[in-house]
Amino acid sequence: MQGNLLQHINYPSDLKKLRTEQLPQLAQEIREFIINVVATKEGHLGASLGVVELTIALHYIFNTPDDLLLWDVGHQAYPHKILTGRKKLFHTNRQLNGISGFPKRTESIYDTFGVGHSSTSISAILGMALASKLKGDFKKQHVAVIGDASIASGMAFEGLNHAGVTDTNILIILNDNAIGIDPSVGALTNYLTKAKIGYKPKSNNIIEALNFKYYGPIDGHDFSSLFDTLETLKKVDGPKLLHIITTKGKGLKQAEENQVKYHAPGKFDAKTGNLVKSNTSNLPPKFQDVFGLTILELAKANEKIIGITPAMPTGSSLKYMMDEIPERAIDVGIAEQHAVTLAAGMASQGLIPFCAIYSTFLQRAYDQVIHDVALQNLPVIFCIDRAGLVGQDGATHHGVFDIAYLNCIPNLILSAPKDEIELRNILYTASLGLSNPIAIRYPRGRGHNNDWQKSFEKIEIGKGQLLSKGKKLAILSTGTIAHNATAAIKETGLSISHYHFGFIKPLDRNLLAEIFKEHSTILTLEDGAVKGGFGSNIIEFANTSGFKNHIITLGIPDNFIHHGTVEELQEIAGIDIKNIINTIKKNKRD
Amino acid sequence: MQGNLLQHINYPSDLKKLRTEQLPQLAQEIREFIINVVATKEGHLGASLGVVELTIALHYIFNTPDDLLLWDVGHQAYPHKILTGRKKLFHTNRQLNGISGFPKRTESIYDTFGVGHSSTSISAILGMALASKLKGDFKKQHVAVIGDASIASGMAFEGLNHAGVTDTNILIILNDNAIGIDPSVGALTNYLTKAKIGYKPKSNNIIEALNFKYYGPIDGHDFSSLFDTLETLKKVDGPKLLHIITTKGKGLKQAEENQVKYHAPGKFDAKTGNLVKSNTSNLPPKFQDVFGLTILELAKANEKIIGITPAMPTGSSLKYMMDEIPERAIDVGIAEQHAVTLAAGMASQGLIPFCAIYSTFLQRAYDQVIHDVALQNLPVIFCIDRAGLVGQDGATHHGVFDIAYLNCIPNLILSAPKDEIELRNILYTASLGLSNPIAIRYPRGRGHNNDWQKSFEKIEIGKGQLLSKGKKLAILSTGTIAHNATAAIKETGLSISHYHFGFIKPLDRNLLAEIFKEHSTILTLEDGAVKGGFGSNIIEFANTSGFKNHIITLGIPDNFIHHGTVEELQEIAGIDIKNIINTIKKNKRD
Repeated sequence: MQGNLLQHINYPSDLKKLRTEQLPQLAQEIREFIINVVATKEGHLGASLGVVELTIALHYIFNTPDDLLLWDVGHQAYPHKILTGRKKLFHTNRQLNGISGFPKRTESIYDTFGVGHSSTSISAILGMALASKLKGDFKKQHVAVIGDASIASGMAFEGLNHAGVTDTNILIILNDNAIGIDPSVGALTNYLTKAKIGYKPKSNNIIEALNFKYYGPIDGHDFSSLFDTLETLKKVDGPKLLHIITTKGKGLKQAEENQVKYHAPGKFDAKTGNLVKSNTSNLPPKFQDVFGLTILELAKANEKIIGITPAMPTGSSLKYMMDEIPERAIDVGIAEQHAVTLAAGMASQGLIPFCAIYSTFLQRAYDQVIHDVALQNLPVIFCIDRAGLVGQDGATHHGVFDIAYLNCIPNLILSAPKDEIELRNILYTASLGLSNPIAIRYPRGRGHNNDWQKSFEKIEIGKGQLLSKGKKLAILSTGTIAHNATAAIKETGLSISHYHFGFIKPLDRNLLAEIFKEHSTILTLEDGAVKGGFGSNIIEFANTSGFKNHIITLGIPDNFIHHGTVEELQEIAGIDIKNIINTIKKNKRD
Repeated sequence: MQGNLLQHINYPSDLKKLRTEQLPQLAQEIREFIINVVATKEGHLGASLGVVELTIALHYIFNTPDDLLLWDVGHQAYPHKILTGRKKLFHTNRQLNGISGFPKRTESIYDTFGVGHSSTSISAILGMALASKLKGDFKKQHVAVIGDASIASGMAFEGLNHAGVTDTNILIILNDNAIGIDPSVGALTNYLTKAKIGYKPKSNNIIEALNFKYYGPIDGHDFSSLFDTLETLKKVDGPKLLHIITTKGKGLKQAEENQVKYHAPGKFDAKTGNLVKSNTSNLPPKFQDVFGLTILELAKANEKIIGITPAMPTGSSLKYMMDEIPERAIDVGIAEQHAVTLAAGMASQGLIPFCAIYSTFLQRAYDQVIHDVALQNLPVIFCIDRAGLVGQDGATHHGVFDIAYLNCIPNLILSAPKDEIELRNILYTASLGLSNPIAIRYPRGRGHNNDWQKSFEKIEIGKGQLLSKGKKLAILSTGTIAHNATAAIKETGLSISHYHFGFIKPLDRNLLAEIFKEHSTILTLEDGAVKGGFGSNIIEFANTSGFKNHIITLGIPDNFIHHGTVEELQEIAGIDIKNIINTIKKNKRD
């Protein structure tokens, strides 16, 4: 399904053999290629369609990989991958042992810096440019492409603020399409919106205030503008920013018109763009929807409840509340640090803020969780979505460290409900007002209960739960991975105890003492790093309490897990049903 | 030593009884009071002297504590504390059970939000203002005072970016004195420097671009300007910023002239301002100087070495290298996130970046350590100063979580040298080029070895060390707290083994196996949180390896430790010599 031109192109050296007037045709072929593959294999669509011309222009004009090119976040890097040796592998995108959905240093010399989280590109490219300068290489070009949502994040500002006082040869290309995953927000976005192609903001140019030379805005789909400007910029020294305006989803009508949906649309018809409708009516809910629908329900009954998301209204399902109660559901943009301290400020005035942040992104606000929330013991409610292995997004996005990094923080309650109903009830319990902050972790994807919207029940903080009673061996699981343990026990047909710890902190020490007295072998199970995780807590409990039972801890081992389906990755990590069965069989002798 | 006016003033209500023409006299008395107390009791000086007029004006004009007033960082909050009920306690500043050196919610209703780390104030005040709005309180004023170094941090930008699209009634006062602890850096600072009293920046006003109403710059020491402007601003709705220009150290000549030194000058003569010279020539070096002098020495011999500090040139002692090799020693401002990813970018190009960040501030760059450094396995060298208990700066500044939050990160080497020589040698070893990133933690203050500048020796990564051989009980310590163990063993006169683990990760498992075979009781000791710390690692090792020895873990317990001397706090945490002795005696039976 490769077009006439694209079939001959594997590397930028091939690209450079084309005449410039052939490039619009190539752009068209690349779009078709991406659409065809993503339509069946799934992945991120809109961002890549928006930068096809830009990608061609950059590889055509610059001397990659000697010139260094860096893509912020990386959702938009499919054309880049296709033009840099990975066209034939593109159908393996995001699959186990296939290419990564993001640029990755180990994958290609053209991927100068691994990305996934937003707003890292300015710092990284500046580091590279300073390195070139120190090496005396003044010819090398350093280019970072960053979107308008990403550049509004604090980290990007820190990079600009430093870059502006250097004389490094860097070019920041601001790819302004007025949207991240959801529409961009914030004062900087409003400011950028005033800029139009051909009309640079005349007053209060933030970029110029930060000592960057400002070029544009130009039409990012127009090869002639791109070529003229990039050729000019190659000869301009010092930090410079080129503002280009593009359309996310460009070239696929439905993707242009429904940019949020077509960010990562799942399967669709490559010809019509129509989404392949899968019947989800009988499926259990996504955990994000359990959160999103429950907070809406709670907020309707309690005016003190606030919802906060850093740029993930759709992904977190806070969207439901934003639609119905916009004054109390806030998207703060890609600003995790701000989101957390904003919540702390609200809690200090008696509000009940629910701060919904993916596990991997909460890493961005770690200091704020400690310094602004936990130290002051302000009852902020952290709703940690995408906890555990997330699947195809891979190593940058797995939420596997949160138990370890939160467990050491005093005052914080750390909860991991086992299913939809428990998630719903712990959200309810937290909304009643706790005397401590609480972090509630739940995974990507769907649970197993259709009938989850039952009437609320208050959960006792710190209480563990017996799920099944057996002999000698007890499985202690935390969170939704309980499901794997239950399935494994069922399959063995053995008499095995299973306890669910909905609270990693505080631990139910009374229940633990009972369990340790009644069972010789303890098997802990968690969808998180074993180092410093739930299992570590159990081992510490045993040590402090003088129990000498045999303890086996299953969880994510001490290395980075890459991309694949959740099931495949669970197998790699050894937290899949089969490995639990094997571990049971190896250790159960009765 | 209180002046005629100050002696009658304990609260803002007293202050309001004065006529405005008396306020310059009061300002003078407050300055004298602060100078007199800090001269003998030590503490932060310059920042507070710079905001005396501002503080008086704010409490005079606004209706605190109903109007909410928040100080960013809090170094400058001494006049605020003196005017809000803590004058008589001010001599207990930073002492055990005395008042905190920073605003603290549990200390006073006038302290609306605890601070210590920079750049949190805009997010917090916005949270409070949104809360007021939701409660229908449109009269309440919300004021945050932030310095020019702090406002250049990413987190502050995130707050401004959000605030600019709200209609909240917030006033950000930019206290511009062109210095943080060290002189401010970055493009925003350069931009602000162009503003002069009475002349607002005419073009490219960043603040206005972010949709704030901009007022000033005015002279922050001139009561009449302050009163006029603040009275006006009380009546202006929406987000607004007042730019005031002040002099750090105002009123004490030497503090004005040497602002870095007089940020926290130690003891000095209140009359003359002269520092009380303590003879430090025979004292062992500060660990920060071991770092600062060693990196300079290494960098002279190796052109690939870079030093990076986020706004702590003096505190980290990177200053030595900045003075001698400025092109390779960089202060990036209060921008920990940027600092880490900048280092990663450099490492990707073959440079050897040493990134010096205090333990408590590395929390700000946690995601970058995981996502940009460890995941890509880039050999960045993190020099983690102020690890462990730091003393008088208290809960916001103790570096007690780093072992726990770093230990769970794959690829990362985690090192804690026991003394100056080992710190020097691990810095040397890292400079030779490692295949992994490494974090090296060392404490605030001085070590015990004067003769530390010996010739370099390469350290084998992951190797533990026998310090003294005994029987039955073995102490396993990591880092400089080894000193306490050594002293305790000496004092007991018992035959006890002592092993130093210079590497928390990777652990020396061979040595551990020997130790566990030869001793019945294991006592671990660390200057860090026990939860998820070194001791946890040892317990996990024992569990995995099937050892059933009795293990006792000493470290910082699972609650926040407040301020006091390091010795006092070690006692509270139970990692002091006395408690080690007691623990030995309780557990050693031979």
